[in-house]
Amino acid sequence: MSSQNKHFISLNDWSNQNLLALLDRADELKKLRYRSRKAEGKVLGLLFFNPSLRTKVSFEAAAIHLGAGSSIISPGSGSWTLETEFGAVMNGNKTEHLKEAIQVLSRYCDAIGVRAFSTLKDQDADYTERLMKSVAHYAEVPVINMESAMEHPCQAMADWMTIRELFGKNALPDKKLVLTWAPHPSPLPQAVPVSVLDMASRSGIQVTLACPPEMVPDTQFIDRFKQQCATYGNNLVIDHDQQSALTGADVVYAKSWASPIVYQNPLEEARLRKEKYQYWTLDADKMQYTNEAYFMHCLPVRRNVVVSDDVLDSPNARHIDEAENRLHVQKSILMQLWDLSL
Amino acid sequence: MSSQNKHFISLNDWSNQNLLALLDRADELKKLRYRSRKAEGKVLGLLFFNPSLRTKVSFEAAAIHLGAGSSIISPGSGSWTLETEFGAVMNGNKTEHLKEAIQVLSRYCDAIGVRAFSTLKDQDADYTERLMKSVAHYAEVPVINMESAMEHPCQAMADWMTIRELFGKNALPDKKLVLTWAPHPSPLPQAVPVSVLDMASRSGIQVTLACPPEMVPDTQFIDRFKQQCATYGNNLVIDHDQQSALTGADVVYAKSWASPIVYQNPLEEARLRKEKYQYWTLDADKMQYTNEAYFMHCLPVRRNVVVSDDVLDSPNARHIDEAENRLHVQKSILMQLWDLSL
Amino acid sequence: MSSQNKHFISLNDWSNQNLLALLDRADELKKLRYRSRKAEGKVLGLLFFNPSLRTKVSFEAAAIHLGAGSSIISPGSGSWTLETEFGAVMNGNKTEHLKEAIQVLSRYCDAIGVRAFSTLKDQDADYTERLMKSVAHYAEVPVINMESAMEHPCQAMADWMTIRELFGKNALPDKKLVLTWAPHPSPLPQAVPVSVLDMASRSGIQVTLACPPEMVPDTQFIDRFKQQCATYGNNLVIDHDQQSALTGADVVYAKSWASPIVYQNPLEEARLRKEKYQYWTLDADKMQYTNEAYFMHCLPVRRNVVVSDDVLDSPNARHIDEAENRLHVQKSILMQLWDLSL
Repeated sequence: MSSQNKHFISLNDWSNQNLLALLDRADELKKLRYRSRKAEGKVLGLLFFNPSLRTKVSFEAAAIHLGAGSSIISPGSGSWTLETEFGAVMNGNKTEHLKEAIQVLSRYCDAIGVRAFSTLKDQDADYTERLMKSVAHYAEVPVINMESAMEHPCQAMADWMTIRELFGKNALPDKKLVLTWAPHPSPLPQAVPVSVLDMASRSGIQVTLACPPEMVPDTQFIDRFKQQCATYGNNLVIDHDQQSALTGADVVYAKSWASPIVYQNPLEEARLRKEKYQYWTLDADKMQYTNEAYFMHCLPVRRNVVVSDDVLDSPNARHIDEAENRLHVQKSILMQLWDLSL
Repeated sequence: MSSQNKHFISLNDWSNQNLLALLDRADELKKLRYRSRKAEGKVLGLLFFNPSLRTKVSFEAAAIHLGAGSSIISPGSGSWTLETEFGAVMNGNKTEHLKEAIQVLSRYCDAIGVRAFSTLKDQDADYTERLMKSVAHYAEVPVINMESAMEHPCQAMADWMTIRELFGKNALPDKKLVLTWAPHPSPLPQAVPVSVLDMASRSGIQVTLACPPEMVPDTQFIDRFKQQCATYGNNLVIDHDQQSALTGADVVYAKSWASPIVYQNPLEEARLRKEKYQYWTLDADKMQYTNEAYFMHCLPVRRNVVVSDDVLDSPNARHIDEAENRLHVQKSILMQLWDLSL
Repeated sequence: MSSQNKHFISLNDWSNQNLLALLDRADELKKLRYRSRKAEGKVLGLLFFNPSLRTKVSFEAAAIHLGAGSSIISPGSGSWTLETEFGAVMNGNKTEHLKEAIQVLSRYCDAIGVRAFSTLKDQDADYTERLMKSVAHYAEVPVINMESAMEHPCQAMADWMTIRELFGKNALPDKKLVLTWAPHPSPLPQAVPVSVLDMASRSGIQVTLACPPEMVPDTQFIDRFKQQCATYGNNLVIDHDQQSALTGADVVYAKSWASPIVYQNPLEEARLRKEKYQYWTLDADKMQYTNEAYFMHCLPVRRNVVVSDDVLDSPNARHIDEAENRLHVQKSILMQLWDLSL
């Protein structure tokens, strides 16, 4: 695997061959319960604009397993609040500009992980990944996307690793993955569903997106995933009937996200998400339609709102394994960005 | 010492022989100013539902001294808010369930410390240690109690180490420890006084509990400690007169806690604690009744409310040594849970 | 270099010879991209009463580069709120006294960094560094000043290192440094300008302080710096005309700070800072008066309020290098306090 990619920001920046090599190494790291001192003296900066459990702990653990150390930066909580607009006259409540913050962190850290969720206010900024692109521009060290406006590539890699474990690397074309939308009290960004579709469409598995019509991600994303499916020999089906979508599924990935109309009409979006479609909660009755499917979710999950207890507590649930795989894929990514071999 | 105990949650889960072996090793670690790399690559997760100074820093330091790393998880501050009720419909302000959080942390960490104070609202949940028992149930790695509703076993071990240092391991039966209640602006949980009585009653020292009648912990606790005293050849005396209790004391442990009536009648509890019994503040005049006793407190302490400056700043005060001993006993506990030898 | 200095609290506690030796080693550490395990098993406690980006990450990175670990303590956010008044009756909202906190941290840590900004309320407490002196008094391990009421010595050392890099160690007497005041929405402490003047006046460079008359620091500080200039063969000029001050400058250090009248008349101070003197913003037009000067700032900086984008983004800007040098000087300081050689 070449080291042409400085950053790990988007799956799309990496060839499938390189992504698969990262996954193969992650499998190996997991099997070996890999620990070494190869990254001794290295500093992993982790910049969180939003909360985290899996991401923080799994990256810290990955660093520790490689002999490296971490530093957490939380703007507004221990660290200075950060202005992200360029050209801003900073006479408000933001004390430091992202431009300085990223340049400075580049001098202290050997890689910088950045989490910056969409605020669902500025569609253009989100769809063009404006903030993460600025970070990459000013960084002098590798940047890792720990969930941006429209992508969560570390989650996608962990999910890919998980479905390879479930079915075997070569059996994916015979299996059906259903990503099903679910209700939620808050409007959540589309980074996870977009990344799940991105990953699945390049993995060779048969992909069905089950969601109400208003919840389909923007055409620019769907078109790209359809094209990817064409390249990798599978299909992307969109089905607005949850029961028909779930029929014959081998793995069901549940997730809530906001309709794209949230940018124009947040009140109507809330009505759809919390009222009109609240019957989309995934439960054990609905899992009956599947081919005894495995269950996946990126976590955190709202129990009995997104998914019922009986699904989460069933023997087919694999959400904890998914979370574990974050550790292994991220260790593999760090080794790649830092040019470390097994 | 056998490794039969997976967790360090309650003194009661461990035999006295094993607890004494932990203390002997803690003594040795302190003497040696022990540093090693025996736990290299290990990750200590520290989950804090409540603030901490000693606990956080002493556990992080213990990990560093053993070559391990730590990861702090603070629900609601950097990490997701956690729902702890089972069966909850999570449509409120809690974003993740404890069940997932503990299972996931078990995949990243080699041990998990958990701090979850009593909220003094649900007596049954507190007395049965409902939350800590759930954590232990879902954890796949050793769990360490960093203060639960009714116990603070790491503090108890540090206190036990301290009184052994003060008087010698074999002289405890000839000495008198007084745990005296003191006033405080807030209703504090009973975890520390209960753990002090638990430790003292199994240590062989003569134990006196000095407190107003309404502040005596529930019979189920007191009865167990009386039985322990019977086993270890000492006595537990309860005295509602502070002066008579302090007379002849060799060590005085001051601490405020809420009366058990707080669950039924918080207003009356506040009146007792802040008004009726505010004369229970421990000061140098009261220390005159003792046998030139040493002073102990688990910290943090409200100066001139719980204890006066003249006691805290006196040459007989040992609260800083107690705090130091947290480091040594916790290092000993980690070595036990991780099967590391000196 | 002798190890007579237990703490790194004030430049004034160290001889110029020792400070220069620290800088020489910092140069070497930077050149070598120094990494070692010499401080293995050591614990660096970092106590933050105020936010931080550079300070936190650069100290954590310095520790990692030396093989040590860190522990962050944030009173009121994860850690107990701290009372700093002596003799206080602690029945308010402060849960622990600084006295205990520092003594306890001394038992867990091998050095303690402390950040405690001025609150601009108590001039006497600030000018006498009451809080930092208490910390030093109760600490049993080396204390590092991470910015106190009136000093930021680590910043001063990084700045000194930077101007030596810019002009060469021996060319400073021929160069002119201008510290120029700038407007800001909030009243900022004087620690940085005082430390910049302290450093510059002992470095041999020609020093000009450019600020409105009301912004000149108290005579006791200025007199000391003038005396230092006398010792080291340079001069301290105070100029209330920004253009004349900037003329011929080789390096311009911009910074906002509150007028000393803030203690007596905060409303008038705000009027001066935000209205009367807002034309003091440093911009590219003003930089034209200089001798193609380099630009410096300690960061964080309010863009287009303190300094305009065109200065911060110009090729002569050195604020990122300054920030980087924090890492190297702090590593040098830690090595000195811990008696480690290269």
